[in-house]
Amino acid sequence: MNIRDKVAVIGVGCSKFGENYDMSAEDMIVAAASEAYADARIEPSQIQAAWVGTLSSAMAGNALADPLKLFNIPITRVENYCASGMDAFRNACMAVAAGMYDVVLALGFEKLRDSGQRGLGTFGTHPVIGYGTTAPSLFAMAANRYFATYGIDKRALAKVAVKNHHNGTMSPKAHFQMEVTEEQVLSAPLICSPLGLFDCCPTTDGAAAVIVCRADIAKSFRPDPLLVKGIGLAVTSGEPYLKPGFAYTGFPATAQAAQSAYEQAGMTVKDIDLVECHDCFTITEILNYEDLGLCKKGEGWRYVEEGRASIGGEIPVNPSGGLKSFGHPIGATGIRMIYEVAQHLWNKAGARQVKNAEVGLAHNLGGPGSIGCVTILASS
Amino acid sequence: MNIRDKVAVIGVGCSKFGENYDMSAEDMIVAAASEAYADARIEPSQIQAAWVGTLSSAMAGNALADPLKLFNIPITRVENYCASGMDAFRNACMAVAAGMYDVVLALGFEKLRDSGQRGLGTFGTHPVIGYGTTAPSLFAMAANRYFATYGIDKRALAKVAVKNHHNGTMSPKAHFQMEVTEEQVLSAPLICSPLGLFDCCPTTDGAAAVIVCRADIAKSFRPDPLLVKGIGLAVTSGEPYLKPGFAYTGFPATAQAAQSAYEQAGMTVKDIDLVECHDCFTITEILNYEDLGLCKKGEGWRYVEEGRASIGGEIPVNPSGGLKSFGHPIGATGIRMIYEVAQHLWNKAGARQVKNAEVGLAHNLGGPGSIGCVTILASS
Repeated sequence: MNIRDKVAVIGVGCSKFGENYDMSAEDMIVAAASEAYADARIEPSQIQAAWVGTLSSAMAGNALADPLKLFNIPITRVENYCASGMDAFRNACMAVAAGMYDVVLALGFEKLRDSGQRGLGTFGTHPVIGYGTTAPSLFAMAANRYFATYGIDKRALAKVAVKNHHNGTMSPKAHFQMEVTEEQVLSAPLICSPLGLFDCCPTTDGAAAVIVCRADIAKSFRPDPLLVKGIGLAVTSGEPYLKPGFAYTGFPATAQAAQSAYEQAGMTVKDIDLVECHDCFTITEILNYEDLGLCKKGEGWRYVEEGRASIGGEIPVNPSGGLKSFGHPIGATGIRMIYEVAQHLWNKAGARQVKNAEVGLAHNLGGPGSIGCVTILASS
Repeated sequence: MNIRDKVAVIGVGCSKFGENYDMSAEDMIVAAASEAYADARIEPSQIQAAWVGTLSSAMAGNALADPLKLFNIPITRVENYCASGMDAFRNACMAVAAGMYDVVLALGFEKLRDSGQRGLGTFGTHPVIGYGTTAPSLFAMAANRYFATYGIDKRALAKVAVKNHHNGTMSPKAHFQMEVTEEQVLSAPLICSPLGLFDCCPTTDGAAAVIVCRADIAKSFRPDPLLVKGIGLAVTSGEPYLKPGFAYTGFPATAQAAQSAYEQAGMTVKDIDLVECHDCFTITEILNYEDLGLCKKGEGWRYVEEGRASIGGEIPVNPSGGLKSFGHPIGATGIRMIYEVAQHLWNKAGARQVKNAEVGLAHNLGGPGSIGCVTILASS
């Protein structure tokens, strides 16, 4: 049960994230893939297989084949709710580890702000809608339970928003480059109590790409490939919020996926230099700290308040700005996290650079908290 | 680029196919998986990871996790148009070959005849609809071009319908157990000229499952595991029918996938004892004969007319009854083909048994002919 050191990341790319009314899904796919090809020093013809993560309906491998003219090779479309991107990356890594392919592409995308296009805009129903709820209302329940359990209030959430918006100002490709103050966050319009506007990630268009290859040939492409140390995926019941036994103060799928990734990597949280995690809502980031083992249960709110999640802190979390500020084009997010971790491990993250970063963890969450995916990458 | 002999099939299962108004998607999933568990002599708790193939919108791993109570393990949803099932199987095989898991489940399903259920019934748009066409109208163009190129007429298509309906009478789980005569086929209502009612596969509910494990431990489960010899997947442009250069008389994605599978297996078509292929329309089966190398280009119509595709013929094709008679629940079909090939290799196919079958080929086609997937299985 181990993928450690069999597979390497040799290039990453990312389109501008935002309300890209001037870009089609195809435009963003081409932007992300082209940057990844250049970063990996490869030609498109060297791609032997591909995986695409998206929540859009019935896209199939043609979602990549046509815009990228990647014809006559295998392309699989993976969908796993909001964790579609990282699970596409995971399946790509396993295929390379199996010896089936030497160099492959994993790409995630979503076009959410403009759904008039054929095919690419037919966004399926988000799973939580089927329960008569919305994403904010479900995560609001988690926030209220967390508050009641640990005796805190929404000021804790605001710290996450302030931190991630600050980080976003240093992320040129992020949806927002805009500081927010704690007062602004706390006085923003309520979306679903206690979550206000700045507690929720935006609706964003974007695409991100990663080039994966056999670890033993990676240095023929670049001197500093990144090694995949472990990837865990776990699926729990899709109806946790409706079940009496669900605690609401964490997502077991995240904890399970993290445990699997740490075990594969032979690492603990002490080895991690930075984390990109799934802050679809501010409360989610606090729960993620605890589920990923950055701090104890019930102490996540302290972790951000004490600055331990800030750049320069104990383990910087979401130096990119996170979903909160970088945006959350569903299928793109998990790959965008790999992109961000790579920027830091390659010391290319500019003003938001986490110093001396050698090991990074990325965490993608899907559905009503039922899908957790965790990847650990390290410098070689 | 090889998966040969690394992975084994140790159990298969299949729900009844048909207009299953009395079964939910969950019911069919449980029926298929339970049969596969029993066939493999395993308990559900031995499943370490799973893949699910379906075209239904935004299902994620929860499509399997909840009905099967397969919690806390990785489950990936794969979608590749009508080839979703076989590509789910392919990704499962690669993960096992990578050493990530020992025993995994691949399951495909679709609920097409009753879409009132939450989630499971939200069937995405078939890709061809986006082009302002329907599946019958696209494949009718191929039929007309084939007729014009080779100077034949729709009597050739009727031979396929007669053969596959005959085979279906011996398939207890098939949608139809009903002989049709050539006269009935030729006088049936036109769906899209030249394709009549009996040239088109039906709209079917169903699920099918396969248990995949490491080849080196397969005999600890059963004495006669089947070995995966090769799996090819190829994606061509999603708009072949709209492009002037497209020949219409074959699907390059099928030919490419077959070539890859044959190469991995170290085999040629001469080694194949039976074929399950994607006869979504009768013309498609004739084109498949040619694309898979069973006969030369332009001779597919003769292949069926001369009885070479019949049970007892040169290479029996679709002894199950095929999509035509067994039915085509989109995501289930590719896995159902693996199920059928396994019945023959295990000498359990009853009245439709292909004698002395040791090597079988299964072929799944997706979208407007743009996705081809081919698997070769052999007795160990």
